[in-house]
Amino acid sequence: MNKKNKKISAGILVIGNEILSGRTIDKNISFLALWLNDNLGIKVKEVRIVPDEEREIIKNALSLSKQNDYVLTTGGIGPTHDDITSKSISKAFKKKYIYHNEAYNILLKYYGDKDFNDPRKKMAKMPSGSKLILNPASAAPGFMIKNVICLPGVPSILRSMVYNLKKYLKPGSKIYSTSISTVTVESSIARELERAQKKYKKYVDIGSYPFFRLGKIGVSIVIRSSNKLRLQSCHKTIIKMLNRKKIKIFKG
Amino acid sequence: MNKKNKKISAGILVIGNEILSGRTIDKNISFLALWLNDNLGIKVKEVRIVPDEEREIIKNALSLSKQNDYVLTTGGIGPTHDDITSKSISKAFKKKYIYHNEAYNILLKYYGDKDFNDPRKKMAKMPSGSKLILNPASAAPGFMIKNVICLPGVPSILRSMVYNLKKYLKPGSKIYSTSISTVTVESSIARELERAQKKYKKYVDIGSYPFFRLGKIGVSIVIRSSNKLRLQSCHKTIIKMLNRKKIKIFKG
Repeated sequence: MNKKNKKISAGILVIGNEILSGRTIDKNISFLALWLNDNLGIKVKEVRIVPDEEREIIKNALSLSKQNDYVLTTGGIGPTHDDITSKSISKAFKKKYIYHNEAYNILLKYYGDKDFNDPRKKMAKMPSGSKLILNPASAAPGFMIKNVICLPGVPSILRSMVYNLKKYLKPGSKIYSTSISTVTVESSIARELERAQKKYKKYVDIGSYPFFRLGKIGVSIVIRSSNKLRLQSCHKTIIKMLNRKKIKIFKG
Repeated sequence: MNKKNKKISAGILVIGNEILSGRTIDKNISFLALWLNDNLGIKVKEVRIVPDEEREIIKNALSLSKQNDYVLTTGGIGPTHDDITSKSISKAFKKKYIYHNEAYNILLKYYGDKDFNDPRKKMAKMPSGSKLILNPASAAPGFMIKNVICLPGVPSILRSMVYNLKKYLKPGSKIYSTSISTVTVESSIARELERAQKKYKKYVDIGSYPFFRLGKIGVSIVIRSSNKLRLQSCHKTIIKMLNRKKIKIFKG
């Protein structure tokens, strides 16, 4: 990587027994990883999925917070007894767990005086000093405290909020990528890919992923780099290697 | 939980840049969590997704190995340069990274003498003393060393192998679960659920998950317990509470 590159990293902390039990399939990790990379050049370096337990949330939020520029948590900021993310993050950073005035007013307006019950009020409580992340889908805001950003677990609501999160994140260098789909198996091109990886060293990342599509097997070769010229050069090198071995390349 | 309950826990370590970049959506976490729970009463307590980097694999495999009865890793045991799981796990446990005789013979037979190249031979290398997990889909076996089990990342191959893994795992107490789908929002039933959770304390876990289905919004209430009677009793309690509040319950 050249010196101009700013590497900005993020960790994702998924909070939820329903993901760990396998009952619910996570849909946020892939969305957030692509969104962070494509919009902001922020690379997700680690993901952890933990249960709705205060001790685990605190331990993992702090550890990811130390190791990354940002931590994004999903889940556990709703109104029910198992939603303990806001309280846990308050404890993690030794902040008071209190009503955020603006959040309180947003929710009061949304539910109306009569229906603004205690579970709904709970969604306005967060670590003292938090910045709000507005929620155009269902009002209850997310928040950012230190480098930790707390988002909801429901995918459609989370997706409605990321635009409002963008202003709080400083971007890194964009990572470019290209891919080549081939009709072959990994073990037939492993030596060639290793040679290409050695040639381009740390400037590009070459990954290879077997797939099964329309009854055919193949390998998808993915090349990633923050340097567009090296990326293109590496792409050409690999195409040449594949042609030399007479390996068919998928079009389109 | 009563004294007869044996709690057996597992951690899952997903190894792969393609999952962290968001390019590939993981399909193994949910499958393994459900399979472990339903077949063996083993509860997944934590999941981590890490890049194809030796240092990260070693650090996280050791940490999950200490905290759980078993660790299941997915990904990184193929033939290419970015497949470094077997070597990393060997280093983690200070074992030699060497050919496993039986694995070597399985692969030799599968590919034939002429096509058994170095990348394919690499798939027979693993930590010294490993037990094999046979692979009926594509020959290359997984392995178990200490309490760490290494499986491939391709979902269809992984699924073909779990039957052969079963014999190495000691089962825990089965966790039973029921769910109730309601036409409501979480904040309308949060107080009732909290009351039910307090009544059944540690004997059951009550979770609530909002959903959007066929244009309707609702909440799925999931009750989990290793004690079937308490589970049924808690289920009845919640149904009564919902009826009292005239909250509609989905049938079927």
